[in-house]
Amino acid sequence: TVSRLQPFGSTIFAEMTALATATGAINLGQGFPDTDGPRAMLDVARAAIADGLNQYPPGPGMPVLREAIAADRAARYGIAHDPDTEVLVTVGATEAISATLLGLVEPGQEVVLIEPYYDSYAAAVALAGGVRRTVPLVADGDGFALDLDALRAAVGPNTRMLVVNTPHNPTGTVLTDAELAAIADVATSNDLLVLSDEVYEHLVFDGRRHTPLAALPGMAERTVTVSSAAKTFAVTGWKTGWVCGPAELVDAVRTAKQFMSFVAGGPFQPAVAHALRHEQDWVVSLRESLQRKRDVLGAALAEAGFGVRASGGTYFVCADITPFGTTDGLAFCRSLPERVGVAAVPVSVFADHKEPWNHLVRFAFCKRDDVLAEAAERLRGLA
Amino acid sequence: TVSRLQPFGSTIFAEMTALATATGAINLGQGFPDTDGPRAMLDVARAAIADGLNQYPPGPGMPVLREAIAADRAARYGIAHDPDTEVLVTVGATEAISATLLGLVEPGQEVVLIEPYYDSYAAAVALAGGVRRTVPLVADGDGFALDLDALRAAVGPNTRMLVVNTPHNPTGTVLTDAELAAIADVATSNDLLVLSDEVYEHLVFDGRRHTPLAALPGMAERTVTVSSAAKTFAVTGWKTGWVCGPAELVDAVRTAKQFMSFVAGGPFQPAVAHALRHEQDWVVSLRESLQRKRDVLGAALAEAGFGVRASGGTYFVCADITPFGTTDGLAFCRSLPERVGVAAVPVSVFADHKEPWNHLVRFAFCKRDDVLAEAAERLRGLA
Ligand SMILES: CSCCC(=O)C(=O)O
Ligand SMILES: CSCCC(=O)C(=O)O
Repeated sequence: TVSRLQPFGSTIFAEMTALATATGAINLGQGFPDTDGPRAMLDVARAAIADGLNQYPPGPGMPVLREAIAADRAARYGIAHDPDTEVLVTVGATEAISATLLGLVEPGQEVVLIEPYYDSYAAAVALAGGVRRTVPLVADGDGFALDLDALRAAVGPNTRMLVVNTPHNPTGTVLTDAELAAIADVATSNDLLVLSDEVYEHLVFDGRRHTPLAALPGMAERTVTVSSAAKTFAVTGWKTGWVCGPAELVDAVRTAKQFMSFVAGGPFQPAVAHALRHEQDWVVSLRESLQRKRDVLGAALAEAGFGVRASGGTYFVCADITPFGTTDGLAFCRSLPERVGVAAVPVSVFADHKEPWNHLVRFAFCKRDDVLAEAAERLRGLA
Repeated sequence: TVSRLQPFGSTIFAEMTALATATGAINLGQGFPDTDGPRAMLDVARAAIADGLNQYPPGPGMPVLREAIAADRAARYGIAHDPDTEVLVTVGATEAISATLLGLVEPGQEVVLIEPYYDSYAAAVALAGGVRRTVPLVADGDGFALDLDALRAAVGPNTRMLVVNTPHNPTGTVLTDAELAAIADVATSNDLLVLSDEVYEHLVFDGRRHTPLAALPGMAERTVTVSSAAKTFAVTGWKTGWVCGPAELVDAVRTAKQFMSFVAGGPFQPAVAHALRHEQDWVVSLRESLQRKRDVLGAALAEAGFGVRASGGTYFVCADITPFGTTDGLAFCRSLPERVGVAAVPVSVFADHKEPWNHLVRFAFCKRDDVLAEAAERLRGLA
């Protein structure tokens, strides 16, 4: 393995999912649902296979999907995109992120990440030869807030890109309008590019509304927005994602992407197009159901003795393990499957500065009610 | 777009396929079949979607597919692989190639390509920060042979990897056993890694047998072999490919791959596993049918006035345009759809040294008989 990838041997998800499988633990580590997306969407994919849509789709994605993505963003956010030049279908958000970094960041340029950060961001910065800077979320009430002074301090003359993620994985934080405005201010006044990972855009709770960063003044022209069908329509294994943004930036992403995968998942593309156009009610139900699941798992974690942090969105809730007499989340997660038959992931693996995050572990609540009930029962064994 | 990707704006396939679509030309440019793979394979994919195999497959690929890949290579070539550590499922050959380069080549190291080369090789070398060297195929009878002296001369102390491709795209050359032995000799005596792209391994004609480079003495330990379901089972849009090789090399590829796409095409994986185990007869029919199609298109090209080169495998045959009073293949291909309603790709775009390749254009014959007949009719209009 080349030196730039040596810090990134294997993801925590691979480790914890393998451990869950080996021990028969309930996997609340890796974030994927255990029920499928809308039946009609699955049927469109099956029909596409039967009807011979099995050859290369166009490099930027099938027009029917690019048009549905643009129409969806226009309807929900009032953001207009030319589907021919400003929308690109990718192999999930993962490829969208790495192609954005590989296509737009020169070796030696700096990229600012919000810490803790989804693990592929750092690896993608390394693949591009970029230099990573981090800005922390900090404890704020029972949740987290962005350290805006640290953000301003992290940006310098060599900064090329800011990576933002809201709703935020792993903490479940939904950035406030004030935080988004501050980010936009930093981005515009320093002429930065912004990669905005909004894959959990639909999964916000308690009446919150998702605000796309590209909707803020001065941001549309500098923002590559990433989203995906995986979480919105519960098809993580299809890996159908996309980027939207100004034509020049999307073209740079496409240039990298065409040599990373060329295209992928042909038969899934009309299915996701169908879902974007016709399954918004299904998404509302998913959101409501996930909010309830968050509350169920949160209550179970509190009852088991964890200090539960606020989660305003995503699949995830973080919990403080200090009440169990340890602040070593990695060791805690490595032993949890064996101890009580539940898997989680330590938040510290998503951070360069581990100290503030060692005592937190992340649980996924995107699971069937019976699975969450069984997990709750097992977690009681910790007390 | 970053500087390392600036020479790679858009692939020739995107350009020529767009031109074919715009003009209504028969697309013999991009290599994809117009009939689908085995029905039972498609049914397994459809059942996987219906049965809820729509979430993340394991990072290295589903065990059922990795085991089928290993069993297939053991049965056909006598090459043994541990499916757990020596087989990795990728987003087609494209990701396999770029992940191999990103995972194993340090910036500044040299990579030797055989010219003409499939376009993504050069882009992947650039993404890795590697330095490209080329070794030409040279005219040999009515086909092509590898310039072995040039190969020996191209390798130096800074050479990390040799990229080999047989059956060869774009020329249809199947390297001889003597050529493979010479490549193995250069690789072993210079301790090089080898990336062997064998996606057309099943598509060899006239009684030829495909010899995997990894079967040669000293090669298994240094060779990453790339193949794919796309061409073998006529599902180019599924982008289900794989690498096989020694555990340490495959692990480096996996490290890069996990941040390029993470995983992909979950429901296709059991379907391809099924095909590898149960559809070898279908592949034999495909091979025989393609050999016949090669002859049909070759005869049509000759009748239309082209100088037809020998093709021993792949989807492709190359043709000399000199009889039409030009040696500018790129201009010829840009005008061909308008002139007679057929699209092809110029071979020179696959070469750094264009002079020997300018007069050649590549036609794909992986099309229905009626489509080839219509293309033949149209090509007669050139005379
Ligand atoms: C890409 S595997 C991890 C899934 C996920 O998004 C998460 O668990 O954070
Ligand atoms: C990946 S698009 C091109 C398809 C192909 O392999 C070819 O035409 O050479």
